[in-house]
Amino acid sequence: MRSSYSQRVASRVWSFTVQVKNPHLDTMEEDILYHFSLGTKTHNLPEMFGDIKFVCVGGSANRMRAFAQFIHQELQLPGNSEEIRDICEGTDRYCMYKVGPVLSISHGMGVPSISIMLHELIKLLHHAHCRDVVLFRIGTSGGVGLAPGTVVISSKAVDHSFHPQFEQVVLGKVITRSTELDEGLANELLQYSTELQDLPTVIGNTMCTHDFYEGQGRLDGALCSFSPEEKLEYLRKAHEAGVRNIEMESTVFAAMCRVCGLKGIVLCNALHSVWCRDVFVALQHRRLTVGQIFTCGTTFIH
Amino acid sequence: MRSSYSQRVASRVWSFTVQVKNPHLDTMEEDILYHFSLGTKTHNLPEMFGDIKFVCVGGSANRMRAFAQFIHQELQLPGNSEEIRDICEGTDRYCMYKVGPVLSISHGMGVPSISIMLHELIKLLHHAHCRDVVLFRIGTSGGVGLAPGTVVISSKAVDHSFHPQFEQVVLGKVITRSTELDEGLANELLQYSTELQDLPTVIGNTMCTHDFYEGQGRLDGALCSFSPEEKLEYLRKAHEAGVRNIEMESTVFAAMCRVCGLKGIVLCNALHSVWCRDVFVALQHRRLTVGQIFTCGTTFIH
Repeated sequence: MRSSYSQRVASRVWSFTVQVKNPHLDTMEEDILYHFSLGTKTHNLPEMFGDIKFVCVGGSANRMRAFAQFIHQELQLPGNSEEIRDICEGTDRYCMYKVGPVLSISHGMGVPSISIMLHELIKLLHHAHCRDVVLFRIGTSGGVGLAPGTVVISSKAVDHSFHPQFEQVVLGKVITRSTELDEGLANELLQYSTELQDLPTVIGNTMCTHDFYEGQGRLDGALCSFSPEEKLEYLRKAHEAGVRNIEMESTVFAAMCRVCGLKGIVLCNALHSVWCRDVFVALQHRRLTVGQIFTCGTTFIH
Repeated sequence: MRSSYSQRVASRVWSFTVQVKNPHLDTMEEDILYHFSLGTKTHNLPEMFGDIKFVCVGGSANRMRAFAQFIHQELQLPGNSEEIRDICEGTDRYCMYKVGPVLSISHGMGVPSISIMLHELIKLLHHAHCRDVVLFRIGTSGGVGLAPGTVVISSKAVDHSFHPQFEQVVLGKVITRSTELDEGLANELLQYSTELQDLPTVIGNTMCTHDFYEGQGRLDGALCSFSPEEKLEYLRKAHEAGVRNIEMESTVFAAMCRVCGLKGIVLCNALHSVWCRDVFVALQHRRLTVGQIFTCGTTFIH
C-alpha cells in the first residue's frame, strides 16, 4: 500500500530539496528577484523563509491576503492578522505574506504572469534551503459538466487540445514539458474530501487556456466568431477528454513543479463566483487539530 | 503628403467608432465587464466614458495611477490629483483612472492578462459610443542593440520567430492575426521626437514573448539550459530581423486594435529601470501648449 505523504515526510526516508536547473546561478555574486523586490545580498533569505513548508498561490492579491489572514487565525499565531505585512511591498507586481510555515502569494492572471512568479519563487526557496515544500495553486475556474461549487483536484493540466503538455519557447525554439501532477497525492486529497459532507470533490483534468474569452468559448467577449452550438460541441469534446474545469495558469505551474522537484497541487472551485476559501472554511468546521495539522493547507495532504 | 493624425481628426473627414466583432452582444440584456467590476445595467457607460479620446495602458497599477496623476496636473484639472479615484475599485484585477479625455489602465503582465483587459476595454468604449479613440501601450522593455533609455516606437509587434503575427486559439483551433501597427502614425511620432534634444527615439520591431526568463534569453531564471553565447546569437538574429526591444504584451495589443478598428501605439523605454514617464517629463519641459494639446499622451500624435 502506498504510504501517505505525511508518513513519508515523518519517516524522513523521503525528503527533497528545491532544485533550480540553471548552472549559471552558482556563478552569480548576487541574485535579484526583481518582481519580489528581494535579493540574496539585500535579504537573509534562509532566515526569512527557511521554515517554509507550504506555498499557496492564487491570482488575486486581495484574496491571497485574506487567505493569509485566515491561516494566521487558524494557526493562532501571535499578533493581529489584520496587520500582516506584504513582504513584496517594494513592488506592486505580486503580493506575498508569510504565516508560520505557509507562504501566500498572488500571481496575477495567465501563464506569463504566474511563470515570472514561479521562477523567482523557486529561486527563493532554493536560496533559503527549504526542504519538502508543497505548492498549492488555489483558485476559481469554469466548471465543465459539474455542479456549481464542486472542487476539482487536478490529475493533470492539459492544453487547448487536451494534451498534458506545456510548450515553452527557449531562444525561439519550442520545447515541450509534461504537466502530469502527482497521482498519489491527488488520491489522498480526494480520500480526505470524502470525509467532508458538504464538499463535493472530483479528480479531473484541468484545461489551461491563454485567453478568457475566445480561448474558453465565451460568447460575450469583444470578439466572437462562433455559435453557441459550436461552443457546446467544444466543451463536450473537452469533457470526453476528461476535462472538468478550465483556468489560465495550471500548465506552466505543473510543468515547472515537475522540472524543479516540487510537489504541486492544483485545486480549483469549479465556479467563478465561489472562492476556494470555502474549502478551507469547510475543513475548519471539521475542527481538525490545529497545532498538529498546523495549517489549513496542510489538511489537504493528509 | 500624408495628412497628420490631428489634421484628419480636425477635418472630420476621417472618423471611426470602436468596433466589437461579436454578433451575440446585441442580443444580450446586460453586459458585465467582470474584471472591471462595471456593467451596462449598473453603470451609465456613455455618461462615464463617452468623452474618452486616449487610453493609456501599462503593466503596473502604481505606475498607471502615477501617470494619471501626472496627466491630471498637466491638464490643470480641478481637484487634488492625489485623490484620484480608481474606477475599478470593486476588483483588484486592474486599476482604472479617468482624467479628462484620458483613461489610464493597468493590465498586469503578459498576453493573457492584457487580453482580458482589452476585451472589456473595447466593449466599454463601444457601449460608451466613443469615437476616434487612440490606444497607447506605454511601458518598459529590454533593449536590443540600443543605448539605455532609448524610446522605441513599434512599427510592428513580432513573435519569438520574428513574424508579425499573433496566434489566437479559438475553440481549440489556432488562428493567426496580423500585428502590424500604423506606419504613418509611427513616423509622425518619430518626427515629433526629433524636436526633443534629450529623447533618443527609434522606430523598430518589438518582440513579444510569453516568458520573461527562458523566453527572453535571461541567464538568471530558475531554469536555464543555454549558454551566454547562444543567448547572444539569438539576440543578434533578432536584431537582424529588425527587433529593437522585447516585452510581453504587444502582439495581442496590436492584433486586437487592428481587428476592432482602433489606432494602437506601442511605446516603450528600452531599459528595465527607466519608466516611459520620462518621455512625458521630457515633453513637459518643451512647454507644449496645455489646453490645445490637452494631454501629454496627445503630444505623441501630433
